[in-house]
Amino acid sequence: MVIECIPNVSEGRRADVVSAIADAIRGVRGVRLLDFSSDASHNRSVFTFAGDAEGVERAMLALVERAIAAVDLRTHKGEHPRMGAVDVVPFVPIEGVTMADCVALAKKVGGAIASRFSVPVFLYEEASSNPARKNLEDIRRGEFEGLAAKMASPGWAPDFGPAQPHPSAGATVVGARMALIAYNINLATDRLDVAKKIAAGIRHSSGGYRFVKAAGFTLDDRGIVQVSMNLTNYEKTPIFRVFETVKREAARYGVNVLGSEIVGLVPSAALTAAAEFYLQLEGFKPDQVLENKLRSEKSEI
Amino acid sequence: MVIECIPNVSEGRRADVVSAIADAIRGVRGVRLLDFSSDASHNRSVFTFAGDAEGVERAMLALVERAIAAVDLRTHKGEHPRMGAVDVVPFVPIEGVTMADCVALAKKVGGAIASRFSVPVFLYEEASSNPARKNLEDIRRGEFEGLAAKMASPGWAPDFGPAQPHPSAGATVVGARMALIAYNINLATDRLDVAKKIAAGIRHSSGGYRFVKAAGFTLDDRGIVQVSMNLTNYEKTPIFRVFETVKREAARYGVNVLGSEIVGLVPSAALTAAAEFYLQLEGFKPDQVLENKLRSEKSEI
Repeated sequence: MVIECIPNVSEGRRADVVSAIADAIRGVRGVRLLDFSSDASHNRSVFTFAGDAEGVERAMLALVERAIAAVDLRTHKGEHPRMGAVDVVPFVPIEGVTMADCVALAKKVGGAIASRFSVPVFLYEEASSNPARKNLEDIRRGEFEGLAAKMASPGWAPDFGPAQPHPSAGATVVGARMALIAYNINLATDRLDVAKKIAAGIRHSSGGYRFVKAAGFTLDDRGIVQVSMNLTNYEKTPIFRVFETVKREAARYGVNVLGSEIVGLVPSAALTAAAEFYLQLEGFKPDQVLENKLRSEKSEI
Repeated sequence: MVIECIPNVSEGRRADVVSAIADAIRGVRGVRLLDFSSDASHNRSVFTFAGDAEGVERAMLALVERAIAAVDLRTHKGEHPRMGAVDVVPFVPIEGVTMADCVALAKKVGGAIASRFSVPVFLYEEASSNPARKNLEDIRRGEFEGLAAKMASPGWAPDFGPAQPHPSAGATVVGARMALIAYNINLATDRLDVAKKIAAGIRHSSGGYRFVKAAGFTLDDRGIVQVSMNLTNYEKTPIFRVFETVKREAARYGVNVLGSEIVGLVPSAALTAAAEFYLQLEGFKPDQVLENKLRSEKSEI
């Protein structure tokens, strides 16, 4: 069973604090730290780790303990919006685990953060029980500075913990979501309007695919433009469909696709789905992938 | 580190013998039995298991012990050619292991089979040191019945063990090779000549791709034809290239591809390569696949 957890912590400048948090994650059995990176101008760090439910829970609580001890939002400055020392904590199903399992884990860890550290916790995305509190942006609007007033207003009692912010650590948003794929398609043109029009056509907010966020950018060093995307549910809006749509829309402007790129990590299943589509595979089952079979419980025949 | 091993044993009729061998494999720590199947008319069983080098070696020796005790080739009948109670033993690199590692393991296990059980061992495929003894078919020609005479002739001394066959267990062929993918492409036609012409065009033996074996068949129940293939090195002759070539050749006869199918197991990397090709991925690295990163030693950052 593999669950990924990607906590965002409001500290991106003090390397000693960031590495102490990384060490806390590494110290938990059954958990593997896959990546971490800090942004000084955002004054924020993102940690990526994975393991079973028990390990991931223990690693998260160890992280919260360190982060709350080190971060004081009353003096924190940074470009990225934030309302907590541990700002947002998504749990993501990777292997042998359902979204419902991740929702249950989010509630368990959220409750533990609230009771152990007196930090109010809001549930978001799949763990949210309230449509007005599903999107992170809606919950975080007003940030740390506006949090006390927001929590005093109707509809903004936390899901767990005290009815007012933690004095230095604010509040934490905990939830469950699908793995997010950062995916870019590069076009053989320098026409930014083409990238922007295609982005508008495929993104959810302007009528496109439900699980696509997209924008058009210029890549100055290469003299080309890019449709830059987040795919927020690769099962329901798969990579191959987005790629084929962008290719077709680009052709309408006489533009070719140069290539595409996946930034960071991608679940194996997202690539397997593309292979299935293009090879027109009939009756293919995930446990035909040798590595899946090796790790599945059911393979003990 | 994951090595796959697919021993073929000359017993496909006595279920008790086959399950005793399966139990012997299951009993080895660090090894997982992925599949086994018996064919009564071939009188032959194929076991698929995987694990680290040490575990796979121990499982193989346990299998040989059971098979030699139970199988007597002097009374064995079956449609499939064979020259040993344990007929052929390929080791296949899957993850975190090179072909050279598998060659070394084949030599180690081959030596152990010879010395422990007095069975002569021939090395084949990547483990072979002699081009005339690379192909299994060449080594096995003459079968068990012709083995004593063959081994007495020039060039057929075994790589390990006695200069004459084991009285009841014959000789065993041990080696290393790439994972083999059983891959079929179904055509929207009942014209067998089209499937046969395409198969001839893509297979190595008649001028096609180096690592493709192919034949054309009729699928009576569906009223269509199929190009049925073994891809013997998916890194050098990848699935997507074969698929695209068959699609193009079929179009030349006005025939569409209905779909394709992978029979049995496929290494994740073979599907990832197809996704990379069709999505025109730039700069993609295997450790961007989340599951690979999770399992790699280097992920401890």
